[in-house]
Amino acid sequence: MPPPAPRSGPRPARLPTPLTGVVPPLCTPLTPDGRVDTRSLAALTTRLVGAGVSGLFVLGSSGEAAYLTDAQRRTVVETVIEAAGGRPVLAGAIDMTTARVVEHARTAWSLGADAIVATAPFYTRTHPAEIADHFTRVRDGADLPLFAYDIPMAVHTKLPLDTVLTLARDGVLAGLKDSSGEDGALRRLLVRVRAQVPDFSVLTGSELTVDGALLAGAHGVVPGLGNVDPHGYVRLYEHAAAGRWREAAAEQDRLAALFALTDAGDPAVMGRNSSALGAFKAALHLQGVIDCPATAPPQLPLDEAAVGTVRRCLEEAGLL
Amino acid sequence: MPPPAPRSGPRPARLPTPLTGVVPPLCTPLTPDGRVDTRSLAALTTRLVGAGVSGLFVLGSSGEAAYLTDAQRRTVVETVIEAAGGRPVLAGAIDMTTARVVEHARTAWSLGADAIVATAPFYTRTHPAEIADHFTRVRDGADLPLFAYDIPMAVHTKLPLDTVLTLARDGVLAGLKDSSGEDGALRRLLVRVRAQVPDFSVLTGSELTVDGALLAGAHGVVPGLGNVDPHGYVRLYEHAAAGRWREAAAEQDRLAALFALTDAGDPAVMGRNSSALGAFKAALHLQGVIDCPATAPPQLPLDEAAVGTVRRCLEEAGLL
Amino acid sequence: MPPPAPRSGPRPARLPTPLTGVVPPLCTPLTPDGRVDTRSLAALTTRLVGAGVSGLFVLGSSGEAAYLTDAQRRTVVETVIEAAGGRPVLAGAIDMTTARVVEHARTAWSLGADAIVATAPFYTRTHPAEIADHFTRVRDGADLPLFAYDIPMAVHTKLPLDTVLTLARDGVLAGLKDSSGEDGALRRLLVRVRAQVPDFSVLTGSELTVDGALLAGAHGVVPGLGNVDPHGYVRLYEHAAAGRWREAAAEQDRLAALFALTDAGDPAVMGRNSSALGAFKAALHLQGVIDCPATAPPQLPLDEAAVGTVRRCLEEAGLL
Amino acid sequence: MPPPAPRSGPRPARLPTPLTGVVPPLCTPLTPDGRVDTRSLAALTTRLVGAGVSGLFVLGSSGEAAYLTDAQRRTVVETVIEAAGGRPVLAGAIDMTTARVVEHARTAWSLGADAIVATAPFYTRTHPAEIADHFTRVRDGADLPLFAYDIPMAVHTKLPLDTVLTLARDGVLAGLKDSSGEDGALRRLLVRVRAQVPDFSVLTGSELTVDGALLAGAHGVVPGLGNVDPHGYVRLYEHAAAGRWREAAAEQDRLAALFALTDAGDPAVMGRNSSALGAFKAALHLQGVIDCPATAPPQLPLDEAAVGTVRRCLEEAGLL
Repeated sequence: MPPPAPRSGPRPARLPTPLTGVVPPLCTPLTPDGRVDTRSLAALTTRLVGAGVSGLFVLGSSGEAAYLTDAQRRTVVETVIEAAGGRPVLAGAIDMTTARVVEHARTAWSLGADAIVATAPFYTRTHPAEIADHFTRVRDGADLPLFAYDIPMAVHTKLPLDTVLTLARDGVLAGLKDSSGEDGALRRLLVRVRAQVPDFSVLTGSELTVDGALLAGAHGVVPGLGNVDPHGYVRLYEHAAAGRWREAAAEQDRLAALFALTDAGDPAVMGRNSSALGAFKAALHLQGVIDCPATAPPQLPLDEAAVGTVRRCLEEAGLL
Repeated sequence: MPPPAPRSGPRPARLPTPLTGVVPPLCTPLTPDGRVDTRSLAALTTRLVGAGVSGLFVLGSSGEAAYLTDAQRRTVVETVIEAAGGRPVLAGAIDMTTARVVEHARTAWSLGADAIVATAPFYTRTHPAEIADHFTRVRDGADLPLFAYDIPMAVHTKLPLDTVLTLARDGVLAGLKDSSGEDGALRRLLVRVRAQVPDFSVLTGSELTVDGALLAGAHGVVPGLGNVDPHGYVRLYEHAAAGRWREAAAEQDRLAALFALTDAGDPAVMGRNSSALGAFKAALHLQGVIDCPATAPPQLPLDEAAVGTVRRCLEEAGLL
Repeated sequence: MPPPAPRSGPRPARLPTPLTGVVPPLCTPLTPDGRVDTRSLAALTTRLVGAGVSGLFVLGSSGEAAYLTDAQRRTVVETVIEAAGGRPVLAGAIDMTTARVVEHARTAWSLGADAIVATAPFYTRTHPAEIADHFTRVRDGADLPLFAYDIPMAVHTKLPLDTVLTLARDGVLAGLKDSSGEDGALRRLLVRVRAQVPDFSVLTGSELTVDGALLAGAHGVVPGLGNVDPHGYVRLYEHAAAGRWREAAAEQDRLAALFALTDAGDPAVMGRNSSALGAFKAALHLQGVIDCPATAPPQLPLDEAAVGTVRRCLEEAGLL
Repeated sequence: MPPPAPRSGPRPARLPTPLTGVVPPLCTPLTPDGRVDTRSLAALTTRLVGAGVSGLFVLGSSGEAAYLTDAQRRTVVETVIEAAGGRPVLAGAIDMTTARVVEHARTAWSLGADAIVATAPFYTRTHPAEIADHFTRVRDGADLPLFAYDIPMAVHTKLPLDTVLTLARDGVLAGLKDSSGEDGALRRLLVRVRAQVPDFSVLTGSELTVDGALLAGAHGVVPGLGNVDPHGYVRLYEHAAAGRWREAAAEQDRLAALFALTDAGDPAVMGRNSSALGAFKAALHLQGVIDCPATAPPQLPLDEAAVGTVRRCLEEAGLL
């Protein structure tokens, strides 16, 4: 593999250890003809930073990374770093296996990202020893902190607890974004992280159980719904950090009710991604943050009734 | 279907609405030759009651219901009701489809159980409308409060949120035992239960995230690990009930570490049930509660090394 | 476990080794109020025997075994043995784990069945070594030839090739009913069976690839669709046995087209079992073989449009 | 998206309709340091052409497409087209969703490939309507015949029968490579293809049931094992084409026994891809076709014992 493009200047070591707070996985606004809408993406970034988030995660599942070309992905990283005002930017390097992931990671490095987020291999059938080798090679291939992205819904592998801990102790992984939804496994991990690798960042991607995850010791949260209500998640985090657990739970309840907008699309006619990502974008459009609610093909657009559902959810949550 | 056997006297309406607190799913001690060890089962019951549990769930997955004959199941229900000292006894009616479940439910009714716990159909491929029909027929077939047992790991169906809510509102279901491990879905349910059917009992079966579930509004917990450390779960519940969330989390952390005993069995040579249920029984044997740690065939026994692991876990948790 | 009820007279050793030909898995006709319709079941049996089948399999998935109570199951075995005119009757012993399966197997033995058909354990999570132990104990528990029923769609475990071969060589298993749909794995098994245990019976339950399975060396077929068109499957088998492969394929093509009747039910409103088993029964009703097309709860009935679809399929296949 | 690079001259319309015979999915030989070994790849191509294959499929699962960078993929297509001596070359365009697949397809077009092979979207959760839209956009995006690659093991979606037929009738799809292993579903498709779209090419990727698939009317086969024994698959195809079904079955039996080499790797220490693709490459290395048996990371190499197993399988099949 060729050496990556030179990077402009040294990377500022601005990633806290561990990383705490709200790190939303940014949606990727598109123009009606399918290009990345950099104006809207910058506006979204500015809004999130203004709400008090502690970092920005681009090119995750909420960011439609699976749908974007390499050129589009580059545009996303560049745009958000430019608009981030110094907040750390974590970049997804989502691809099937090691060599392809390394290429994305090097690109993100050359563009100035502060950390890489990568999943276990997918499409293939992979042994835990191979998953460990994968992360080790990705870390060696790009000189940036590496977060493991545990998302079995997408990659059909759950990262084993022992694999994560070993890679954390060995310095291969700097953190974990846990989107497995398996909060019991997360709890077991947190107990051992605290005892063994306290600097390792554990962020939950389960946006409906953030209060419980923080109570259990998670350092932060990566909520897709945080695109729509970043202030809510920041309040939730701050309540938890201050030990105001009842208030944190009430905020989480409000956000759990708001999450109903992701069901706006009819599952008889469209997939879950079309409905959930379409709803996030419809909400951002209704809120005036982005110019166009389009999602990338082959996702199907929400119809008028579905957009009406999104509007009602926003109104009930006091967001319109 | 013939009418059930007559029941001795009226059923005491002793099930609180909603049911709260710790309701452990009792292990079923066996003799070395595979019969239900009623002495040990009564001793286990007495111990749990003494620890302050609010109810007893027999014939669940921790109780090896799937492994017991109908006669053994009857023995279990009788033994625990006798030893329960008036605590409510919920009885699993675990079978593939409606008519078979109704038979188990009627037997449990005739023996004096206070509630029935039933899963969605399994072995077959079933539509949500059929799942709703199933629970309705089970409720109609046995005059006892009915809890839905959401355990996709066993039945390969996740109970849909709307199905549970509709059945709750219609009075078909009195409660839910959520062993899905999907705490995000549980949160969405709890928000709507509180608004719509506040008497509906929601018990989490996820023994590693009890603090978070109680913070989210769950009424109680059905922890398999509660066989081994009932006092720990009762303390956890009481901390939560009193709003001492940090203390609840610390107790949960201790129990999450103890849960490592379920991994004692080597997955290369035995299944998960052999390891986890074998570990619960080995622990109860080491603690002197039951006479024999045998599990039912075709589960394989823990070897000496595995029992040593269980012992270490107990010692570290201060339970030996 | 108590000794089984005495059996009336010695068991005729009428099961050929290997078992060849067409062994349909009988549907279980029900009355409108849900009892086993013994008259219709006998009529179905007589029809199948008249068509030239070589054996009868009761209490399989097509027979709604998962939906029938123990008493109903007994009635089915008794009725079919009585009407079978000496053809061998294989009885399903479908239940979650070993002890329960042994009870069903002993009952079938006491009623005069010629062989038992049992699946891997389900509901539980089971290691291959435990599956082997399960079949060994079932075989020891009832003195009848034992067929393994490989049906991962229902039990969520695929029987490992090596486990089947070892159990075949050890005399635990007399045969296999392969409903896995994995014809590649079946081929690998057949090559090794022929070399190592030529008396072991291999029957495919994949009713749409019977010509290929017979070409590969399978001994026979257990086709659910054989309830509806037993003559077709008998012709298919005889073509294959005589090396008329083109004619066998043409017959299989006709049956594959007929299989479209199983899609009659709308998947938006009912499960796959309701549609497929409902269609088999609707066809038998339209053909005048059984009195009532009802399926067992919680399956939902086919509506008029769906029955019309079944009728058209029968007409196109020349069966009405 | 920018217009693709200009293609040198018009594309020869050399793809037969339907495409028949043996179309092996070429392995991608690598050098010890992980580059595409173009000499070995050309040698493999020459050997396959010499054995009488009717086409060449590059960048499929056997070709480790998921593990190769875009630059490596280009090298593979160029090398094989150059060495193919005019045989049609089908190129996999394996990526997560539409826009990314279109880019690969355009590259393949510009390099002179004769057809594109693409899967349903993966990583995401996709509705059948979206799958249809995906294939339509891919076909529109690159002016080449498009084959659907049905490989649920990798993409976790089974292509619905009706979707395939509709896309075939609409001219979106020119053919199907069926690696689903679901030969029953394949049979239903073949019956309808023959009646409705006879020019549509149906190729089975199930290398162990080729005789049955051809008897059922499949046009050809894409066997990974054909890298190792192309002559065997060509003989099998020719027997079938001539109606010598017993001889075809005997050849398939021999190949099914040979397939045991894919189990050479120990599943306790490596994944299925490492074992199967490693075995194909070890065999090619032992046969002197390729220079190095390395597979791409994070696959793990076969150890000496495993290579010994591969050698024994080759010897037993008369290939060494």
